[in-house]
Amino acid sequence: MYRQLKSTIYESLEPHPVSDGAGRFFDIFIMALIVANVFVVVLESVDGIALQYASFFIAFDLFSVTVFVIEYVLRLWTCTANPAFRGAVVGRLRYAATPLALVDLLAILPFLIPMIIPLDLRFIRAIRLMRVFGILKMGRYSYASDMLVRAINREKEVIAIIFCSLLILLVFASSLMYYAEYEAQPEAFSSIPAAMWWAVATLTTVGYGDVYPITPLGKLLGGVIALIGIGMFALPAGVFTSAFMEEVQKRRSGCEERPAVRTPEEIADLLERFSSLKQAGSISEEEFLAQKRRILGK
Amino acid sequence: MYRQLKSTIYESLEPHPVSDGAGRFFDIFIMALIVANVFVVVLESVDGIALQYASFFIAFDLFSVTVFVIEYVLRLWTCTANPAFRGAVVGRLRYAATPLALVDLLAILPFLIPMIIPLDLRFIRAIRLMRVFGILKMGRYSYASDMLVRAINREKEVIAIIFCSLLILLVFASSLMYYAEYEAQPEAFSSIPAAMWWAVATLTTVGYGDVYPITPLGKLLGGVIALIGIGMFALPAGVFTSAFMEEVQKRRSGCEERPAVRTPEEIADLLERFSSLKQAGSISEEEFLAQKRRILGK
Amino acid sequence: MYRQLKSTIYESLEPHPVSDGAGRFFDIFIMALIVANVFVVVLESVDGIALQYASFFIAFDLFSVTVFVIEYVLRLWTCTANPAFRGAVVGRLRYAATPLALVDLLAILPFLIPMIIPLDLRFIRAIRLMRVFGILKMGRYSYASDMLVRAINREKEVIAIIFCSLLILLVFASSLMYYAEYEAQPEAFSSIPAAMWWAVATLTTVGYGDVYPITPLGKLLGGVIALIGIGMFALPAGVFTSAFMEEVQKRRSGCEERPAVRTPEEIADLLERFSSLKQAGSISEEEFLAQKRRILGK
Amino acid sequence: MYRQLKSTIYESLEPHPVSDGAGRFFDIFIMALIVANVFVVVLESVDGIALQYASFFIAFDLFSVTVFVIEYVLRLWTCTANPAFRGAVVGRLRYAATPLALVDLLAILPFLIPMIIPLDLRFIRAIRLMRVFGILKMGRYSYASDMLVRAINREKEVIAIIFCSLLILLVFASSLMYYAEYEAQPEAFSSIPAAMWWAVATLTTVGYGDVYPITPLGKLLGGVIALIGIGMFALPAGVFTSAFMEEVQKRRSGCEERPAVRTPEEIADLLERFSSLKQAGSISEEEFLAQKRRILGK
Repeated sequence: MYRQLKSTIYESLEPHPVSDGAGRFFDIFIMALIVANVFVVVLESVDGIALQYASFFIAFDLFSVTVFVIEYVLRLWTCTANPAFRGAVVGRLRYAATPLALVDLLAILPFLIPMIIPLDLRFIRAIRLMRVFGILKMGRYSYASDMLVRAINREKEVIAIIFCSLLILLVFASSLMYYAEYEAQPEAFSSIPAAMWWAVATLTTVGYGDVYPITPLGKLLGGVIALIGIGMFALPAGVFTSAFMEEVQKRRSGCEERPAVRTPEEIADLLERFSSLKQAGSISEEEFLAQKRRILGK
Repeated sequence: MYRQLKSTIYESLEPHPVSDGAGRFFDIFIMALIVANVFVVVLESVDGIALQYASFFIAFDLFSVTVFVIEYVLRLWTCTANPAFRGAVVGRLRYAATPLALVDLLAILPFLIPMIIPLDLRFIRAIRLMRVFGILKMGRYSYASDMLVRAINREKEVIAIIFCSLLILLVFASSLMYYAEYEAQPEAFSSIPAAMWWAVATLTTVGYGDVYPITPLGKLLGGVIALIGIGMFALPAGVFTSAFMEEVQKRRSGCEERPAVRTPEEIADLLERFSSLKQAGSISEEEFLAQKRRILGK
Repeated sequence: MYRQLKSTIYESLEPHPVSDGAGRFFDIFIMALIVANVFVVVLESVDGIALQYASFFIAFDLFSVTVFVIEYVLRLWTCTANPAFRGAVVGRLRYAATPLALVDLLAILPFLIPMIIPLDLRFIRAIRLMRVFGILKMGRYSYASDMLVRAINREKEVIAIIFCSLLILLVFASSLMYYAEYEAQPEAFSSIPAAMWWAVATLTTVGYGDVYPITPLGKLLGGVIALIGIGMFALPAGVFTSAFMEEVQKRRSGCEERPAVRTPEEIADLLERFSSLKQAGSISEEEFLAQKRRILGK
Repeated sequence: MYRQLKSTIYESLEPHPVSDGAGRFFDIFIMALIVANVFVVVLESVDGIALQYASFFIAFDLFSVTVFVIEYVLRLWTCTANPAFRGAVVGRLRYAATPLALVDLLAILPFLIPMIIPLDLRFIRAIRLMRVFGILKMGRYSYASDMLVRAINREKEVIAIIFCSLLILLVFASSLMYYAEYEAQPEAFSSIPAAMWWAVATLTTVGYGDVYPITPLGKLLGGVIALIGIGMFALPAGVFTSAFMEEVQKRRSGCEERPAVRTPEEIADLLERFSSLKQAGSISEEEFLAQKRRILGK
């Protein structure tokens, strides 16, 4: 009975892509609460509104944290229903370390920390802003986040190379500009790190206009750096867009092949786990074979 | 005779891609009037010009509205010549609810509302500016608008996902920046919504320069946010460009297959309607078969 | 003898892609003169330099104009050596109307006009700046200009559509912003044309920062317009880049097929001309057939 | 023994893609020193830090230069172990002229020059900043630099064409703007070169906001130039991104075919060199055949 209840709750907490009444309603409720929560954090930062609706905000915060804490505790309790997280303590710790569980924890910590530890004002503000990250909880319900993560993942090596190159280019551009402008504008170009602020604003083409070269040499260098550097700084956007479009195409053509994304290590790990479950008699021979087929993506 | 007149007028009002004298002339006349109308709204906003040519503008406005009202009334009257809008009242209401008919209405409302309801000055300005939207009437004559709409339509799911992601990124960036700069610039970064103005200006790379970080932490955060965020904010442009280019390619290769864009529901609906017309004896058996072939795109 | 001389000069004036000593030297001399000429115009605009080297600049200008005038006169005289420009007067007029001949004229007019007509100072400056356009003469020697022109040509319909859409978007954005900001900033947003300056600076992401919304409604509108509009304003760059890359690919794969670009009218026109030349006995039967094969691209 | 030692050191100095203990450790040590060196240059430019940690910076500089000088001397001594650089003097000079050896020299010159020649203060700053270019030494260990260089190489002709076109466009835009704004803003648009600063800031969409047109004609011109020019200035980024992505694809599909990049001249040169080595008895027949196969990429 206890095991059955746990399993039912576990199922209820998982996202329900196909509408089945109560389960789907629960998903939408949690999503709405997440969005409302972020909305409240944003509104609370506006002085006038914060004062006027103080009591409402407190009530809403209490309600949110209660729901999220209950959700987190339930998830932690029932996670052992998943064979991947067997083991009262080890399994639960392993579950608590998954990205989604960490996000769940991150979403409730900003409520809990100030209750436990007394903090100075500035730190409290930081903690409250952390609540904005609660929106990452949406990742569980949205395949969009999936696509973004996979697009980044697939090109992560290339993106890392590009970012290193951009950093090097940034140091070059800043050093040159520091040399050219230091004497004319010792305030704005006081050091290479200060010149980097100019370089970032220029190479991303944001161009706030708070710092810009004024000497002829600086303007010439600035123009050449802008012309050459922009091509480099446009690279990550181009790479990311094309990776994202490929993910979209893949999803559309239906050949999603999620299991194939698993690394050989992950597959070996999963097989081993199910194998030990079979030996312990927790699952039958057939169940084991079905899991194996699923893992190998057949 | 009455039916024939209605049908002839209906045909005259439809766009004439192949030049046939009078019909084509009418198209060009309406298009020129639409463009002139927008031009007048733009010029009227310039104080000097508005005063100097006041009488001309009033005369032109009266002429425009007269033509557009007549056009709208004629369209509403003759739309029943189209089997899709059969029914003196129901058919006309259904026609009035089509996007193009709504745009036609939108183009004359700004003239009519101030004649009917007395309004305060600010509202009158808003109403007059609404006339600018009359340019959407051009959509009837241009296949470009068609291509743009279809390019958006085809990727609407992806574009919606991206805009949600951008919104989340915007909230993150603004919250971080609000935290970093609030104490140094309580005016510019007074709240998270205020910081959003900075975030939009930065992530779109517009960079007006009215707000920018001044603290070292803010500049570091700003630089990182710019580097990472710009890739995300370049996504919709990339997706839209590639969708648009595909529409262009499709049109060029001649495999336009407009009817194929019809959803099965639309096809079923059209067939049913013609079938009932045949049973009512309004159209002959052959006419029905021809329509059926046209609907099925054969 | 006269005809032979004309024909030899004609050949000398045409670009020589394959180096053949004197001819190639002449090409390089003209190109260097064009570049030097533009360089001089740029330097002359700097006050200090203009005064200091006044006599040098005058001497150089005289030299340039002499060479360019001689070149133009020779081209005009010898063009009749090309069968396409037969006819002492008609042929030469037809030649003078070709884009390259017009550019040649444009390059010498700025020297000649002030000698002929007395002008006021401001107009003289405009005329002298016109000399910058002399650089278009380079088009004769560079296949890059060819590729750019063909890339634009090939997508000219699409680019025209996009520019119209951008114009409409510009009018919409300006009208909305004019409405939102007129009362708060009657100076910067004094009229819709004034608001267009803001719209262009924002939608192209230049963002000088001389005008920007300050009201909450204006900032909201500005943010939404920026997010949506940038996708549209990135379109022409995307379309042009892909068209240019295709031209590059085509040139590389060697399947240049220039003749195929000729319209049927051009082909008919050329055939007719050569046919009449054959009938007049100016060219032999074989020559005619060779030309025909060339025209038809076989 | 001497030859063996030289050969062993030569091998140790070459990058070790496959980890083999000591060799790999040496690579990482040099890379860390390069990065630390750049980091120190950047930090030294900050006044406060420079004073506080002066003695540490001096010590670190001494250590760096010692290591880099030893590395350079060893490379120069052992390079003759490579058949391509045979010859005690000629071979070493040829090695010293390779890009990577020049970068190695560039990395130690900023330390050595001030020790040898007495310099004024401004020049010393320039020399010290040169140390930043020491990061180019990383190129030996990173295949990313390889990919960037090859992406540029492969499109270098196209990129050159585009940059020429951009330059011409820049001159045009500046001349027009100089004409339009000179009278209204004789300071900001004092000459065409001055107007080029505006043109670069606008056409790259950086838009600092230090110079912008204020006359109606200037704003109109500025808007049109921005709309047209941005498409051109986006070209190099697009071309470079697509070339880079192709290099990435090539590396991924494993068909890297490095030897195929060699020009026929390089191949002939290498074969000739090994052939003379064989005749001199320095390498055996089999060694020669193996080298030949490697050179021909079989």
